[in-house]
Amino acid sequence: MSYDSTFAQIVKRENVPHPPSAVANYVATRQVGDLLFVSGQAPFQGKEIPPQYLGQVGGTVTPAAAQAAARLTGLNLLYNVRDALDTLDRVDCIVAVDGMVNSAAGFTDQPKVIDGCSDLLVQIFGANGKHTRSAVGQVALAFNICVEIKLVVKVAP
Amino acid sequence: MSYDSTFAQIVKRENVPHPPSAVANYVATRQVGDLLFVSGQAPFQGKEIPPQYLGQVGGTVTPAAAQAAARLTGLNLLYNVRDALDTLDRVDCIVAVDGMVNSAAGFTDQPKVIDGCSDLLVQIFGANGKHTRSAVGQVALAFNICVEIKLVVKVAP
Amino acid sequence: MSYDSTFAQIVKRENVPHPPSAVANYVATRQVGDLLFVSGQAPFQGKEIPPQYLGQVGGTVTPAAAQAAARLTGLNLLYNVRDALDTLDRVDCIVAVDGMVNSAAGFTDQPKVIDGCSDLLVQIFGANGKHTRSAVGQVALAFNICVEIKLVVKVAP
Repeated sequence: MSYDSTFAQIVKRENVPHPPSAVANYVATRQVGDLLFVSGQAPFQGKEIPPQYLGQVGGTVTPAAAQAAARLTGLNLLYNVRDALDTLDRVDCIVAVDGMVNSAAGFTDQPKVIDGCSDLLVQIFGANGKHTRSAVGQVALAFNICVEIKLVVKVAP
Repeated sequence: MSYDSTFAQIVKRENVPHPPSAVANYVATRQVGDLLFVSGQAPFQGKEIPPQYLGQVGGTVTPAAAQAAARLTGLNLLYNVRDALDTLDRVDCIVAVDGMVNSAAGFTDQPKVIDGCSDLLVQIFGANGKHTRSAVGQVALAFNICVEIKLVVKVAP
Repeated sequence: MSYDSTFAQIVKRENVPHPPSAVANYVATRQVGDLLFVSGQAPFQGKEIPPQYLGQVGGTVTPAAAQAAARLTGLNLLYNVRDALDTLDRVDCIVAVDGMVNSAAGFTDQPKVIDGCSDLLVQIFGANGKHTRSAVGQVALAFNICVEIKLVVKVAP
């Protein structure tokens, strides 16, 4: 099945609508040559952020909830990629994932959290979904989301 | 008015001299093809960082002060871009802004802070100043600055 | 002496074996055109992280230990670069270093810490080792490491 069909099937099954658009002086994506830069995304489920995804991981948010939030954030990122390219079938590979986890001091499982996004990318793009990655702890994030993730994608010629 | 003239007018009116140069084993910019990478910058006003820009936002630094610090940081970044390209008129567009806000736990308005830089970029470059963005909370920053920002810029052919 | 020979001599003298491979759905490097993106690395000495490199800088980890950890992390990053390019002699220059320091609130010497990596890069690559840089404070990092660093490298034609 094509990347785009797999994505469409997942967002339908998991009930994930398109995330809100940027409201300030920035944009969701910028393409330079075959590199597509994607703005930091949040675990929106449509217009709302589910309350279990708000707070610090290792505090009020469980690692399992944060991993689900990272998967949801990944789907929102791919909505933005699809908007830029018309179809995810134009993705060549995922280049970089920067995972930022709202962390209580002492929480050290940031990689497990970001696996929620990494595993999604490999589910959809196979080996081309593997990417370079960082996964680090932030003291605070916008709206009190538990995770924010940004991407760099290589676009097929 | 050209990008470069607009910038020159703003730094004159707002009394923002060139920031200090890097003092360690790094450089302000590196260009690869049409991508210009710019090092993290700080809210220097010339050689000094105004004291109201030192500390954590949500703590001793107000969100309004931090937004002004982000604008000032943006001007310093553009000094570095101009040094690399001789003139800001060679900017094609702003690709990416990474905004890092020195944040008290519980402060969640990082995007509002980084708007200070984003709005500046659009003031100077218009639609070409819109960029992909992340805006996250750091527990601490160098010199205790309230904000650090780095850029990726696309250079015109 | 060539970049690759210098690196080989340093890792032999400082007793730094190859770091572990990525165990989740990501990879150490991705190359797009002449840009090589490198995943965040940790201060592994072979399979272990020396205990003096675990914890927050400004807390249980001294700035001097963290600087040594940043140098060690740099060597691990270069192992990954060498794996991708077969030899470090194919490096054109270092484009970007993102240094993330596990920081106690109030610790503000992140640049000094990341100098451990920056100085290493210049030791090996000379002026071509100079890079754009950010150096910021994280509230927590994976495995409780005191520093995580990622790279972008320009590959020679």
